Amino acid sequence: MNVKVNANYLNLKKNYLFSEIARRVAEYSSANPQKRIVRLGIGDVTLPLTPSVTGAMAQAVAEMGKKETFQGYPPSYGYDFLLKAISAHYASYGADIGTDEIFVSDGAKSDAGNITDIFGSNPVLITDPVYPVYFDSNVMAGNAVTFIPANRRNGFLPPPPSEKINGALIYLCSPNNPTGAVYDKAGLKAWVDYANDTGSLIIYDSAYEAYIKGDLPHTIYQIEGARGCAVEICSFSKTAGFTGVRCSWTVVPRTLVSGGVNIAGLWARRQATKFNGVPYIVQRGAEAALSERGYAECMDLVGYYMENARVISELLTRKGIYFTGGECAPYIWMQCPGGLSSWEFFDMLLEKAQVVGTPGAGFGANGEGYFRLTAFGTREDTYEAVRRLETVI
Amino acid sequence: MNVKVNANYLNLKKNYLFSEIARRVAEYSSANPQKRIVRLGIGDVTLPLTPSVTGAMAQAVAEMGKKETFQGYPPSYGYDFLLKAISAHYASYGADIGTDEIFVSDGAKSDAGNITDIFGSNPVLITDPVYPVYFDSNVMAGNAVTFIPANRRNGFLPPPPSEKINGALIYLCSPNNPTGAVYDKAGLKAWVDYANDTGSLIIYDSAYEAYIKGDLPHTIYQIEGARGCAVEICSFSKTAGFTGVRCSWTVVPRTLVSGGVNIAGLWARRQATKFNGVPYIVQRGAEAALSERGYAECMDLVGYYMENARVISELLTRKGIYFTGGECAPYIWMQCPGGLSSWEFFDMLLEKAQVVGTPGAGFGANGEGYFRLTAFGTREDTYEAVRRLETVI
Repeated sequence: MNVKVNANYLNLKKNYLFSEIARRVAEYSSANPQKRIVRLGIGDVTLPLTPSVTGAMAQAVAEMGKKETFQGYPPSYGYDFLLKAISAHYASYGADIGTDEIFVSDGAKSDAGNITDIFGSNPVLITDPVYPVYFDSNVMAGNAVTFIPANRRNGFLPPPPSEKINGALIYLCSPNNPTGAVYDKAGLKAWVDYANDTGSLIIYDSAYEAYIKGDLPHTIYQIEGARGCAVEICSFSKTAGFTGVRCSWTVVPRTLVSGGVNIAGLWARRQATKFNGVPYIVQRGAEAALSERGYAECMDLVGYYMENARVISELLTRKGIYFTGGECAPYIWMQCPGGLSSWEFFDMLLEKAQVVGTPGAGFGANGEGYFRLTAFGTREDTYEAVRRLETVI
Repeated sequence: MNVKVNANYLNLKKNYLFSEIARRVAEYSSANPQKRIVRLGIGDVTLPLTPSVTGAMAQAVAEMGKKETFQGYPPSYGYDFLLKAISAHYASYGADIGTDEIFVSDGAKSDAGNITDIFGSNPVLITDPVYPVYFDSNVMAGNAVTFIPANRRNGFLPPPPSEKINGALIYLCSPNNPTGAVYDKAGLKAWVDYANDTGSLIIYDSAYEAYIKGDLPHTIYQIEGARGCAVEICSFSKTAGFTGVRCSWTVVPRTLVSGGVNIAGLWARRQATKFNGVPYIVQRGAEAALSERGYAECMDLVGYYMENARVISELLTRKGIYFTGGECAPYIWMQCPGGLSSWEFFDMLLEKAQVVGTPGAGFGANGEGYFRLTAFGTREDTYEAVRRLETVI
């Protein structure tokens, strides 16, 4: 063939992180078959769907099997019943988001990756360490990326740069993956002001908002000025255990206009052309997750994981190890003790405690010397991991 | 805001087709409230999911509600059980497609729209009339499109152009939407030879393959040489009534290489970065649709719609009106009688028979003077429409 490929793809680095982890674990296991490995590296939920959700989905399956209640093509941007439930969820945080500003989709990853499609070539600001999709999708689009370092000095919550970069796309994730750090209102306001000041757009990923306790912002639309400079991507994956169900949404306020072009109109056109909506069955499950009973069940899931986070955090506090996250996020981002590098610490934990986590260096240059533990394991595994960590760190 | 948007989006024409149809029907209905409208314009299925499918999905919902059987993130390219079922489906047509060449996704529209992402700027050949996604997604990518006219002279099955256009992306759909025309092996072989001769890539949409009877090719991989020049997009939407369930797949043979770059590798990277897999529940339903019992049920759905197509085709044959489709496709593409334009015929049918179809001009310049009827209505509505058409054409 003699077809030109997208040459930007050739600039992508292969992400060896999880395959390298798997390789080292397999090697250790085959040399030490009697040792039981405990995994705190998992980024996926482990608890099953709740009764409200499975009940609603079972009913939706039955409806799809009857002529009178069968549903064909879903609306491109989501059924009204789900748009209303999501709009009400925002209202519960004091944010006024219309149903015509919400675009339901099959995953936050899809939307975070696809959103470059509606933009031209702009400067891109991404915090480091980072969820790889933000970076890789911009490499695919051929955009120049500037990393904003997140580190111990700024508590892994970097403020906007001093330099005013005009018309940038700015990716923020709070609660953050991988660091678990959460912006407070002042911290987020600084970014909103910076974006409005420079004519930039914030792409705000709030996938872990359900893990927030207290007064921290759940959505960027709790910040004054955000409707003029921010889209928000959120998901049912970590709130309702939907990683295998696939449902998320993106908010594009109708007030977002650049060069006379309405951004919501562009996203609407993109989605109507390159996407065909989320399954009826899934949307009924998502609606149920946002019902009063369903959301209480979701909070039980979150509570289970956060108890795991608490025992890990408590150990690290007791040991005097610096970390972020764990309080309002299912991730704990710890400094490797003894000045070890991310991978040295990984190997040490595997050898001495048979505990597997994720080397921070895999999430970007500023992740070196750090290590991510997650709260998504079972209670028993988490307790066991903490007992083992106790003896080696 | 001062962010550059993708300026190609501003070159998109708004597609007024279905909104204009809705407007004219609403206007007529409000002026004639006592008249019952019969719709043969519908492009969506109307029969419910079959028992095999709903049974498998109900079981999958139950599994998702139990800790021992809960499924988190699906594999990026599909569960093995479904990949094997799709591979076996190809084997039933004599085509050898490995499970590592199949990429399960949420819809043929998604894949047809997203595939431009992995290519650079190439000449694009699209048959006209056309499913709008092929064209719009290339406008979004800023690609120059050459239309290949499909018309009565070539039976709406255009052969490759005489000019050798090198390194082109060629979009083919067979059975065709909107014309219902189906390439035979010789017709498809001419395109495969052209593509191999010019180093071009065929993007082959076989979403309606289940409607084929007899010896016509169900997949482009029944044609010698296709593994060197073609990807294929197929779907459960029209085979199993999955328009509201959302499951499809794209085949990218490992043998497709351009400039030393493996195309399957590019698509794998795109999907792993900008997509997160299809719901477990949906994939279990899709697997069931390809089981022996499930596929027999699908053939009952297809048979129901094809009986509708038969009665419409019979009428047109009796009236001596030229048409394509209806024999191996759920679409009937008829020449407007009396030299009427597409919209004149639309208005006449609405006024005199209260039957609604789709003006061919809405699918491209070569659709002018033609009209699309579909077989997706109920039996009663279809019979009623045929009775009414009988009297006015």
